[in-house]
Amino acid sequence: MDFRKRVEVCFTPGEFPYFKDEFQTVVVIDVLRATSAICTAFEYGVAAIIPVPTIEEALHYKQQGYLAGAERKGQIVEGFDFGNSPFSYMKEEFRGKEIVLTTTNGTKSLDVAKDAPSVVVGSFLNLEALCHWLLKQDGDILCLCSGWQDKFNLEDTICAGAICDFLITTGNYTSIEDSSIAAKYLFLSAKDNYLGYLKSSSHRRRLKNLNLNEDIKFCLTPNQTDVIPILKNGKLVKA
Amino acid sequence: MDFRKRVEVCFTPGEFPYFKDEFQTVVVIDVLRATSAICTAFEYGVAAIIPVPTIEEALHYKQQGYLAGAERKGQIVEGFDFGNSPFSYMKEEFRGKEIVLTTTNGTKSLDVAKDAPSVVVGSFLNLEALCHWLLKQDGDILCLCSGWQDKFNLEDTICAGAICDFLITTGNYTSIEDSSIAAKYLFLSAKDNYLGYLKSSSHRRRLKNLNLNEDIKFCLTPNQTDVIPILKNGKLVKA
Repeated sequence: MDFRKRVEVCFTPGEFPYFKDEFQTVVVIDVLRATSAICTAFEYGVAAIIPVPTIEEALHYKQQGYLAGAERKGQIVEGFDFGNSPFSYMKEEFRGKEIVLTTTNGTKSLDVAKDAPSVVVGSFLNLEALCHWLLKQDGDILCLCSGWQDKFNLEDTICAGAICDFLITTGNYTSIEDSSIAAKYLFLSAKDNYLGYLKSSSHRRRLKNLNLNEDIKFCLTPNQTDVIPILKNGKLVKA
Repeated sequence: MDFRKRVEVCFTPGEFPYFKDEFQTVVVIDVLRATSAICTAFEYGVAAIIPVPTIEEALHYKQQGYLAGAERKGQIVEGFDFGNSPFSYMKEEFRGKEIVLTTTNGTKSLDVAKDAPSVVVGSFLNLEALCHWLLKQDGDILCLCSGWQDKFNLEDTICAGAICDFLITTGNYTSIEDSSIAAKYLFLSAKDNYLGYLKSSSHRRRLKNLNLNEDIKFCLTPNQTDVIPILKNGKLVKA
């Protein structure tokens, strides 16, 4: 009998239905850049983030006076003041506020996962703090990668693999899905040089073409914050 | 301007819609064991294989007098004489015959891919011959992994990564999808010891529990045949 808890990886929101209902905690990951931006926002004092899947919903909140951000295909949506660059959340005016955010992939994953018993936000930025927090939770854990427009992406998978590797190394967790085993393998070969490993990744190319190299470097730098954003009644708050 | 052709990897039949219409040739891969069995059948003289997605269709052919095989969850379906063990196709009675086959994952992928301009069958067994054949084809190539019940699997991905690696090394091909880059990375770390690398994979565990270790070893031994099974009017024949 194996008494270890499970930690698994789902590569895309589209595959979440094959995993749902089995896991107590879902960690939503969108390294470039939504979940990195969300962690940064809390580190810089935002009170809450309301993630919404559509631009229409974000606009609706904005019209009610909320600070609202929207990103599609790597760029700020017209009519919004910010998107998902972590640097845009390092502002005094955001401190203590509730802000609204919609992004291409990350807020879609949050929406897909929202009915799980516990939903938290993961990125390289809060990796170590998150792993320690996860160790104290009951039940099995699913890392839900946001991917890129329903396809697999490398950076979310490597971040998920890092979480698996950490938890498995404690001896209290195991992975039985091939996706989790692959994620761990990919993390182990990437961990000494994330930026180099991802040099050929599609998303890095895409953001580089948009002159977002500084964003990429920032998002791939682990352990810059201890915040664990958790979903409570449709809002992300600090755990 | 990049004049190289593309070779990409789709991890599961469920994700095929995100890739279809872009590729001239689709290579369907189900290492454990459907596409390995299909390659073996042609190596041992089968004239044609009719892949069907459902047990009902296989049964219908069987009632018409065809030799028909059916596998679900690793085991031969009741009422059929063979499933997808490569060893069951090494029979004199199959020589020159048309046989019908339905399996859990492999024939489902063939069904999903069937409208592509060219559909061929890949496995470790015909890896080198297939790569040389692919080099002579026009247009872009998609390796379609069969996965396990709509989820990612490691052995198909590694086989797809081997095809990518071979074609990219010639200088005439490139991969732009992260799934393809990951498959190549996974192949490169697996290639010196497939059996060891897959020791923790879910499918290997599953088949081992069914005492199918010899099947696994056989299916992971590259370059045992030069046959390229190709889909023509709903039947697999030798290219």
